[in-house]
Amino acid sequence: MRWEGDHLMMLDQRELPHREIWLALTTPSEVAGAIRNMTVRGAPAIGIAAAYGMVLAAQQDLDMADADRTLAESRPTAVNLFWALQRMRAHWQSGETRLLEEARAIETQDLAMNLAIGQAGAELIPLEATVLTICNTGALATAGHGTALGIIRSAFSQGKIAHVYACETRPRQQGLRLTAYELLKEGIPFQSIADSVAASLMRQGKVNCVVAGADRIAANGDTANKIGTYMLAVLANYHKVPFYIAAPTSTLDPSLANGDLIPIEERAATELTESEGIPIAPVGTPVFNPAFDVTPGELIDAIVTENGVFRRPYCFA
Amino acid sequence: MRWEGDHLMMLDQRELPHREIWLALTTPSEVAGAIRNMTVRGAPAIGIAAAYGMVLAAQQDLDMADADRTLAESRPTAVNLFWALQRMRAHWQSGETRLLEEARAIETQDLAMNLAIGQAGAELIPLEATVLTICNTGALATAGHGTALGIIRSAFSQGKIAHVYACETRPRQQGLRLTAYELLKEGIPFQSIADSVAASLMRQGKVNCVVAGADRIAANGDTANKIGTYMLAVLANYHKVPFYIAAPTSTLDPSLANGDLIPIEERAATELTESEGIPIAPVGTPVFNPAFDVTPGELIDAIVTENGVFRRPYCFA
Repeated sequence: MRWEGDHLMMLDQRELPHREIWLALTTPSEVAGAIRNMTVRGAPAIGIAAAYGMVLAAQQDLDMADADRTLAESRPTAVNLFWALQRMRAHWQSGETRLLEEARAIETQDLAMNLAIGQAGAELIPLEATVLTICNTGALATAGHGTALGIIRSAFSQGKIAHVYACETRPRQQGLRLTAYELLKEGIPFQSIADSVAASLMRQGKVNCVVAGADRIAANGDTANKIGTYMLAVLANYHKVPFYIAAPTSTLDPSLANGDLIPIEERAATELTESEGIPIAPVGTPVFNPAFDVTPGELIDAIVTENGVFRRPYCFA
Repeated sequence: MRWEGDHLMMLDQRELPHREIWLALTTPSEVAGAIRNMTVRGAPAIGIAAAYGMVLAAQQDLDMADADRTLAESRPTAVNLFWALQRMRAHWQSGETRLLEEARAIETQDLAMNLAIGQAGAELIPLEATVLTICNTGALATAGHGTALGIIRSAFSQGKIAHVYACETRPRQQGLRLTAYELLKEGIPFQSIADSVAASLMRQGKVNCVVAGADRIAANGDTANKIGTYMLAVLANYHKVPFYIAAPTSTLDPSLANGDLIPIEERAATELTESEGIPIAPVGTPVFNPAFDVTPGELIDAIVTENGVFRRPYCFA
């Protein structure tokens, strides 16, 4: 996404990888809608988008509290959204220019944090590594470089990555659509897999470590992330494969003692039952479609932030 | 499928649940093609189809050994195919009528075996059970009733089933397309889930047991089944949820000491990268797409056949 004087231009990630469509957003409601319908997704990216949404509110002399609420209600799980809105709140009275400065700072700092995460996390990656990841945690999910994918990118630039397995990430297939797109662009060797393939790859000794992103991390290290992350953590534990989480400190929520307190969004049944608008399941198929799961801190071998590599037991304050 | 005097009528499962298209197959090559492209799928069902394929060979005075080879090469993993062809082989010289009798016997006996599996397996299901299953193991995968789904069906008729979670089963979505179709028809309460949701359901204590089918079971109980089955077995083990396999004895392959010897079919990348013919992944996305995985016998709490419930350690001869 990019700010263009008086509006926010946003790449519609729902249309990737086949079409690059940029949408011009001019109101906080439009930004909230874009977050809700996943035009933009990825915990850091939706925080940045929300910050620019507040700039739009100031520009148009809208009620700041209203705009804040609209944006805050767009999605419940990723804490970066609330963190960014909180940062903006301190400047509601300071005028549009200051708000724009703050939004730009959030974006720039996110990129810097990602680069630091990449540096710190690459230390965890062995030579000739085969790394498994889930969802998209790359440039598209952040201000650039990425979190888990940022570690892969940094490790690749150090010559350490032999292969990446990129989980498809049902139901919205961000791994198959977006991570594949980024890996192809970077020339990083990889294969896309159905999420259910990860287990047998680990059994065959073909995975050296798992790296995943995060949408919210509680004080004890319990981590909400894309549905399937907890599955990978259990499988990694069983197969003695190291399991790492990568996230900027904007993803920490020390106000929550543990992951049971993290709200888990459930999304529409059609995410599972339809593909490209075409029905797949029989009419009337009931669906349970949680967008996230929670991985307990005990199953996470390290959490990598811009401040370095943290190890169990976690105690974020 | 049904035999109609001089040809085999086969419901095209690739078109379900939205269209019921029946194809008339008149040669063993056509039957082999239908097995290969998954017009018919499910280990017992492809055995039955292959048996009728040999009837077609006899009817048309084709070389029986050629026809046998063509059918045997259609898919590598499910042993029922080879088992059925072996049974037919004993009657190559006995003429078309005897071959047709044998094919009909294979079909009828499969239905009887499924009903017995259902009866025996229902004993394992507690009252008010929530059962998780994968792929389609119902009437569509067999001569009728089903294996794992047959147990669910039998337990439901005994009033034991509170809820079923049906894994979508990527990449071909047999759970979402076919199991949902059968469960809706039967009025069994269920929800379809992405395969990656199973782990968090187990963590939340929402799954009482897992039942899955099988494509080949080695002498020691190691079981090849739809990709994702091994994932469920590890998750069930971690969460102390009983994990059961259901299969007729035609799925046993005592000639293999263990599951490492079972050939695992890899299928086309497009099964993952396209949906309904529409590309999802970026052009050039490399894919690893195994159709099956192997669950070690140690992770299987019981194997249910028409001869009853077997417990660890397994020793099939």
